Formats: sequence, structure tokens, C-alpha cells
Amino acid sequence: MSEPVAISDVLDTFTDLWSPRIAGSVNDYDVRLAKVRGEHIWHTHDHTDEFFLVVEGELRIGLREPAGERTVTLSKGSLFTVPRGVEHKPSAPSGAVIMLIEPTGTLTVGDRHEEVPAHVDVTTGHPLA
Amino acid sequence: MSEPVAISDVLDTFTDLWSPRIAGSVNDYDVRLAKVRGEHIWHTHDHTDEFFLVVEGELRIGLREPAGERTVTLSKGSLFTVPRGVEHKPSAPSGAVIMLIEPTGTLTVGDRHEEVPAHVDVTTGHPLA
Repeated sequence: MSEPVAISDVLDTFTDLWSPRIAGSVNDYDVRLAKVRGEHIWHTHDHTDEFFLVVEGELRIGLREPAGERTVTLSKGSLFTVPRGVEHKPSAPSGAVIMLIEPTGTLTVGDRHEEVPAHVDVTTGHPLA
Repeated sequence: MSEPVAISDVLDTFTDLWSPRIAGSVNDYDVRLAKVRGEHIWHTHDHTDEFFLVVEGELRIGLREPAGERTVTLSKGSLFTVPRGVEHKPSAPSGAVIMLIEPTGTLTVGDRHEEVPAHVDVTTGHPLA
């Protein structure tokens, strides 16, 4: 990454949903971009927080916390961090583009998850084309 | 950060230039937002990369690399990481809003820097008002 990367240029390189591209890095963290629509799955990262920034559209994140289950809604230009150990389920009924920041090697489905349907890519992120 | 944070709401809370607000975190990293205009200073982070995302406007980053000095220009929606150890100088002649991601405690002027003028805030980032 010796030159700046335009998010729009990255988004032009793929159409896959729930399949993050690694757009950059900072130390041992990845900056990933994903196109999403519909529902991801309930999953938990036991050892890391997960940061979300909504670039386009609206993202919902279901959270199963000690106090109960709730859903937060992130509009375009909003950010939120899911704390490590909190079971969560992203969804985007109308579609969204999101930026994620998490340690390199973090799996999209976490350390524990429900059954993975065909539309969810189990990956640590794909390099840019 | 138990609720999503809208970048626009954070920007409404301050007018200071070159004075980052801590809008979120992920593990031991801060997500900071800063309003910038004019020139920052040449400085170096010896132990960490520094990630920039341009939210509004245009940001330039001067870089003093082994091969020589150059300037990269980031338009709105572009990202770039300054590698650890690389002397750099952000500037924004027409003003910009930027998001930074770096380890909690990272100083705005790095570990080594030129003389700090009055318009540059020496800080590890300010909590949200």
C-alpha cells in the first residue's frame, strides 16, 4: 500500500456479498471492505473486538448481551464496535457497504457460530484483485 | 460505546483543528476524528503505523522515504497507511475531515518531530464531549 486506495475503486473490483476484501492494514490489523445484503449468521469472536463503519446504506447488528438481545442500527457514516465475546449477527435488509477493522487472520464467522449457509463466505478476507 | 456513533454528530461537538477526538476503539486501538486545515508538522511514529481515511475534503501527506521525498494526495473516501518509522507531514490546504486509527496513547506529533507551532495540538486524542 504505497499509494492511497479509493474505496470506490475497491468496490468496483467485486460483486460478492459477505465476502470482505482487504483494502489496507495498520500494524497487524486489516482494514476490510464488504458488500452485504440480507443476513449474516450469529457468531462470536472470543479474542477480539470487531469495528464496523457504514460506508453506504444501513447495517443492523443483533447483539446477545448478558442483559438480553437487542439490535443496533448503523446508518451511513456511523461506527460501532462489537466487544470481544459478544455473540452478534449483522444484517442489511436493503444492502450496505461496510468497513471492518480487526486483527489480521480474524475469520468472518468468528470462533463459534451457527451453521454457515452458502451465501456466507468463511474467510479471513481476500486480497485486492 | 454501547450505541452506534454518527461521525456527523461527533463533528458537531468541536471546531478545533488538528485536535483529534476519540470516537471509538477496537481492542487497544483508537478510532479518532479530526478537522484539519493548513499544515501539520514533520513527525515520526517509531513504533506504529498510522492509518488515515478521508471523510471530507482532501488530505495530502508528505513522506520522507529512503528513496526520497514525495507527497500522496487522498481524496474523500480514500485510505492510506503511513508505515512506522516514516517521517511524514499531513496538510490540507482547503480543509478536510479525517479518521485515524492507531494504538491508544499514540501522540499526534509522534516520537520525533520538528518544533510544534501553536496551531498543532499535542495530544493522544480527546474523549468525546
